[in-house]
Amino acid sequence: MSSVVERSLLDLSRGRPILVYDADGREGETDIVVPSEFVTAATIRTLRKEAGGFICATVPHQLARRLGLPLIEEALDRLKGHYPVFQKLVSGSPPYDSRSSFSVTVNHRRTYTGVTDRDRALTISSLARVFREVADYSESWAQQVFSSEFRSPGHVPLLITDDPLLEGRRGHTELGTALAIMAGVTPTVTLCEMMGDREGALSKEGAKKYARDRNLVFTEGREIVEAWRRWSGSWLQESLISST
Amino acid sequence: MSSVVERSLLDLSRGRPILVYDADGREGETDIVVPSEFVTAATIRTLRKEAGGFICATVPHQLARRLGLPLIEEALDRLKGHYPVFQKLVSGSPPYDSRSSFSVTVNHRRTYTGVTDRDRALTISSLARVFREVADYSESWAQQVFSSEFRSPGHVPLLITDDPLLEGRRGHTELGTALAIMAGVTPTVTLCEMMGDREGALSKEGAKKYARDRNLVFTEGREIVEAWRRWSGSWLQESLISST
Repeated sequence: MSSVVERSLLDLSRGRPILVYDADGREGETDIVVPSEFVTAATIRTLRKEAGGFICATVPHQLARRLGLPLIEEALDRLKGHYPVFQKLVSGSPPYDSRSSFSVTVNHRRTYTGVTDRDRALTISSLARVFREVADYSESWAQQVFSSEFRSPGHVPLLITDDPLLEGRRGHTELGTALAIMAGVTPTVTLCEMMGDREGALSKEGAKKYARDRNLVFTEGREIVEAWRRWSGSWLQESLISST
Repeated sequence: MSSVVERSLLDLSRGRPILVYDADGREGETDIVVPSEFVTAATIRTLRKEAGGFICATVPHQLARRLGLPLIEEALDRLKGHYPVFQKLVSGSPPYDSRSSFSVTVNHRRTYTGVTDRDRALTISSLARVFREVADYSESWAQQVFSSEFRSPGHVPLLITDDPLLEGRRGHTELGTALAIMAGVTPTVTLCEMMGDREGALSKEGAKKYARDRNLVFTEGREIVEAWRRWSGSWLQESLISST
């Protein structure tokens, strides 16, 4: 595992943000990534002020399945009969990948407007807590617990990882969640794209400088994919050995 | 009409942002409001840096009907059979009103990631252009034009106004859209909630100070409702007279 990835895992396990750049040929964007379980109001403030993109929380595909949460595209697709405009509106793909990873948006039921730093932090930290809690529950009980804590629509978009992780899609959703899994924290991260001052995303060099100035790890998709391959491969081997 | 509302209409007609505070007993939040037709990359940058909430665009209910766009809550509600978790997840209401005004999220098809200042400005200014364009189209043709320009999901949440405007719900969605109609600009505004530095929304006093420092109009829901009543009443009278 590269020392950059190792350092990023150490930082994540301690709740520190890291920067993740996907790839030159893809979005070409850097996201600030924080493990959801460590998100506070101060984190949301930093993300909106310093990054400026969409503040979203990831859900590993296994957990999304247990919670019965679909990609929003898949859900809206089922409504093409009811809403004819969806036939074409919910079609086509973004230029950088075959699809986005958006699911529904949520607010914790104890939030007020849902959008303040305090409210988004409550929603996101509660997501991490509930994700841990429902890990061993049956589907119906997990869904009961989840939906008694959260309401949709809300102000935190959920992002569901591709299945299997990092084999097809390699977006920030998958890269950040893989890091959380390897770091041993609750497998959900909160992401926000870093914007620049010239109408586009912050440049790769700009993001590297930001990381240097604040002593944060800057890591790239290919390093994470490589680390994930080794990590999940060795984990798979071990579990195969231990089951024989 | 109060001089504050008059000045806000003049500013909006020239593309200047104004500040709208809903009401003490409601969200108690101030939004920066800009007519969508004037939104540029610089506007998005200002909204994310100075306001910090969700950057959304409004759709008047008549136009939403023509475009066949539902509230997202209503759409997800139809899927309770397919996704049992929605039965409870898509239920209940925010503490400040009976429901949110969220519809689907969109990106213009010519955007790249969809989230940059340039991309969100392209999506929003195109919404205003398409809204003008389809105003006289049949439903099916309007939906054809709309869905050939936009894709869902995206990075600009659409907000649909309550029907009739400002009789029941009096949120920023309705207040901002009523102002756009009275100002004679394309009837869609782009909104963003102003956040404070202490975990919550910016206080009313803080928002007033922000407005004073930048020579922006600060107006409140009750003034707008009052102006709307007079304006729509006299408009209704005129149209009744002219139709006899």
